[in-house]
Amino acid sequence: MMPFPSEPWIKMAVMVFVIFIQTNLIVESQPKSDKILSLPGQPDHVSFQQFSGYVMVDEKQHRALFYYFVEAEEHPASRPLVLWLAGGPGCSSAGAGAFIEHGPFRPNGENLVKNEYSWNKEANMLYLESPAGVGFSYSSNKSFYSYINDDITAQDSLTFLKHWLIKYPEYNNRDFFIAGDSYAGHYVPQLAQLVLHSNLRLSLRGVAIGNPLLEFNTDFNSRAGYYWSHGMISDSSYKLVKRMCNTSRLRREYFLGGPVSESCRHVNHALSKEMTEYLDLYDVSGDKCLSNSSNLLHLHPLNPPKCNDIDVCLQEKTEYYFNRKDVQNSLHARLVGVTQWSLCINNSEGGDQDSVIPFTGTRSLVSRLAKELKLKTTQPYRAWIEGKQQVGGWSQVYGNDNMLSFAIIRGGSHTAPFTQPERSLLLFHKFLQGKPLPLSNA
Amino acid sequence: MMPFPSEPWIKMAVMVFVIFIQTNLIVESQPKSDKILSLPGQPDHVSFQQFSGYVMVDEKQHRALFYYFVEAEEHPASRPLVLWLAGGPGCSSAGAGAFIEHGPFRPNGENLVKNEYSWNKEANMLYLESPAGVGFSYSSNKSFYSYINDDITAQDSLTFLKHWLIKYPEYNNRDFFIAGDSYAGHYVPQLAQLVLHSNLRLSLRGVAIGNPLLEFNTDFNSRAGYYWSHGMISDSSYKLVKRMCNTSRLRREYFLGGPVSESCRHVNHALSKEMTEYLDLYDVSGDKCLSNSSNLLHLHPLNPPKCNDIDVCLQEKTEYYFNRKDVQNSLHARLVGVTQWSLCINNSEGGDQDSVIPFTGTRSLVSRLAKELKLKTTQPYRAWIEGKQQVGGWSQVYGNDNMLSFAIIRGGSHTAPFTQPERSLLLFHKFLQGKPLPLSNA
Repeated sequence: MMPFPSEPWIKMAVMVFVIFIQTNLIVESQPKSDKILSLPGQPDHVSFQQFSGYVMVDEKQHRALFYYFVEAEEHPASRPLVLWLAGGPGCSSAGAGAFIEHGPFRPNGENLVKNEYSWNKEANMLYLESPAGVGFSYSSNKSFYSYINDDITAQDSLTFLKHWLIKYPEYNNRDFFIAGDSYAGHYVPQLAQLVLHSNLRLSLRGVAIGNPLLEFNTDFNSRAGYYWSHGMISDSSYKLVKRMCNTSRLRREYFLGGPVSESCRHVNHALSKEMTEYLDLYDVSGDKCLSNSSNLLHLHPLNPPKCNDIDVCLQEKTEYYFNRKDVQNSLHARLVGVTQWSLCINNSEGGDQDSVIPFTGTRSLVSRLAKELKLKTTQPYRAWIEGKQQVGGWSQVYGNDNMLSFAIIRGGSHTAPFTQPERSLLLFHKFLQGKPLPLSNA
Repeated sequence: MMPFPSEPWIKMAVMVFVIFIQTNLIVESQPKSDKILSLPGQPDHVSFQQFSGYVMVDEKQHRALFYYFVEAEEHPASRPLVLWLAGGPGCSSAGAGAFIEHGPFRPNGENLVKNEYSWNKEANMLYLESPAGVGFSYSSNKSFYSYINDDITAQDSLTFLKHWLIKYPEYNNRDFFIAGDSYAGHYVPQLAQLVLHSNLRLSLRGVAIGNPLLEFNTDFNSRAGYYWSHGMISDSSYKLVKRMCNTSRLRREYFLGGPVSESCRHVNHALSKEMTEYLDLYDVSGDKCLSNSSNLLHLHPLNPPKCNDIDVCLQEKTEYYFNRKDVQNSLHARLVGVTQWSLCINNSEGGDQDSVIPFTGTRSLVSRLAKELKLKTTQPYRAWIEGKQQVGGWSQVYGNDNMLSFAIIRGGSHTAPFTQPERSLLLFHKFLQGKPLPLSNA
């Protein structure tokens, strides 16, 4: 599980890029059986096409991956193709990526509301549920679930892409980007490496990973400092972590099969007393959803979230929406081997408000990577500026042509496009252009 | 300038308390010449009384302190009296404390809008502009401004209280609290000490200080770690600070008269390049006001801030409002020796979003104080819970009867009641009751 591609031209960060210039051959889009006529509760006047359905990646074992594809709002033929992979491992790209983070719609009770900052304003967005077992993707041979690993996941995703391009031939030779977040810090570069060495007719121009899991020790060891510097644990507990059991060891012992040492037990006890189940570790400044989905629908059937407020119950609303039979029919989706669609089959694991994969770990790993690749800093660490002279976050660029970029989205949670949609869309725009984020003139 | 009162019964923190029990003698309120009939643009149906005006603290030199006094919304005769002191040094308690943080109204263009989380729901709030030279307070003898110091400030405030109680005799023997923020981390405990040793007939029950300046080195040295852990500076600059010139030395050399060493100059250069004038250091997650006051009024004369959004232009709106002649007349205020009312005459300098006096410094100072006073932890560091099971912040309590409490308000800026009004009001309520903040049952 090598998280970093070794090709020095691959650009990554808490967002990333590449440059080839290539002429696109535009082929007219063909009508597809996967075309979505209309999603239940969808707003009127939707100007772009949506598709979804299955691509068989293993005929013998009957293993099929589900995708949701949203064409760009305008000029899809001249826009790039972006493949989105959710992390987890085990989280749904269609649910978490499209309907919570950056797709065109967000579920609200029985209806969908328009997301003003949808990424299909910039690109044709392909959301892949991967590996089989996640979201609506499945394997009829259940033994597959016992031997699945990251290599197989990447191979299946590559096979998916090959077959998907047969369905959608107009995307051959198109500018192509792979993006994802969290555990996709592994999925994205691994798939990128396979794509590079494949004969796929896609022009891979960059990869982007948000709050990615990159290197276990650095990422998880950055947690205690984050907790402490954000008020979540006391001085004395922080000292305890440093002296007795660091947070990567803590996670290893508790979640990866033990045995649990006495010192880690002690530290775990101290931390769990101070931190609380009421806090969303993925968004330490945000609130938690308090209603269960049925409450949400009966009490506030049509209430859109107020103003710019974040709808902290969006996850519950998405789970409700994706479990509706009429929605599944519209999506050409089936439940195979499960009775319910889940946002994540295991529990998943940055923006600067994420304490699960803190940006502090990512920042030091990206700078370490730059050193290994002998990339010089071409744009020093600086605040980047959003439209109206507000700080969007901070960024640093390494190498020529914005080869490798690190960017923080100020106020962003683990899933930054959910809590900071406007800043995230700007960052996505610059990423696709291969351009650095705007700096202040100060 | 001893920031900590040595009496072990004084309770302090990023909020604090005390316990005596005493019977209140309720005297009927007399009509006063300082009564405010109505403030320009004030909402209808105001149920409480407001007063403002001057108290002469030095007849000879003609030195007078201005106050704004808001009776409690209900049952003022049975509610405590709270004196609020703004920090800075040099910031207006009426402007910053009442009209921006926790008074009953907030300016919006030509009008005032109701603050739903006003602290006069809990107490009779006395906002004192102190020392002379701040806000509407003045000294006719201008030479006073050259020798003013914290001791004189505390003495003048004590004299103010003595005379104020003659105007408002029904507050004699009332439960009394002193509170403030920022530099009032010095003002509040120093005045509390004088009150304790005075013959004032007030029953001082506790002091509270928010994001207080307590001890120069610890407070200012906590800045670099805060910047770094909040994405504002790079790994390399953070190393530079630690190696070459720490942030308290940086401040000392630059703001307290130098000389500036080569190493501090180098560090200052690195930090100022990475940080930006576009960021509000007092609220690193918030936005900045982009319009100047005249724009604000002409472009959006009557727009209240949307929904629960924070009005980042409230400071500018308050400056505009306090400079209206009709407002000054209603307040019985005068401009003496200045042509304009200013929110702060020098630039001022706590919540977890404050990078100027980071809570990390306060947290370690409070625990050091507890150790010095031999106070044991009576309630360990824990998340405290706001009404609907959301995390309000974290807190720790030392000593019996909640003697000394430290509390973080999650999402709070330097002036936490401005950015987290609901959480701040709950904390204020518990402070007045001498009770700990509610914990989760987890």
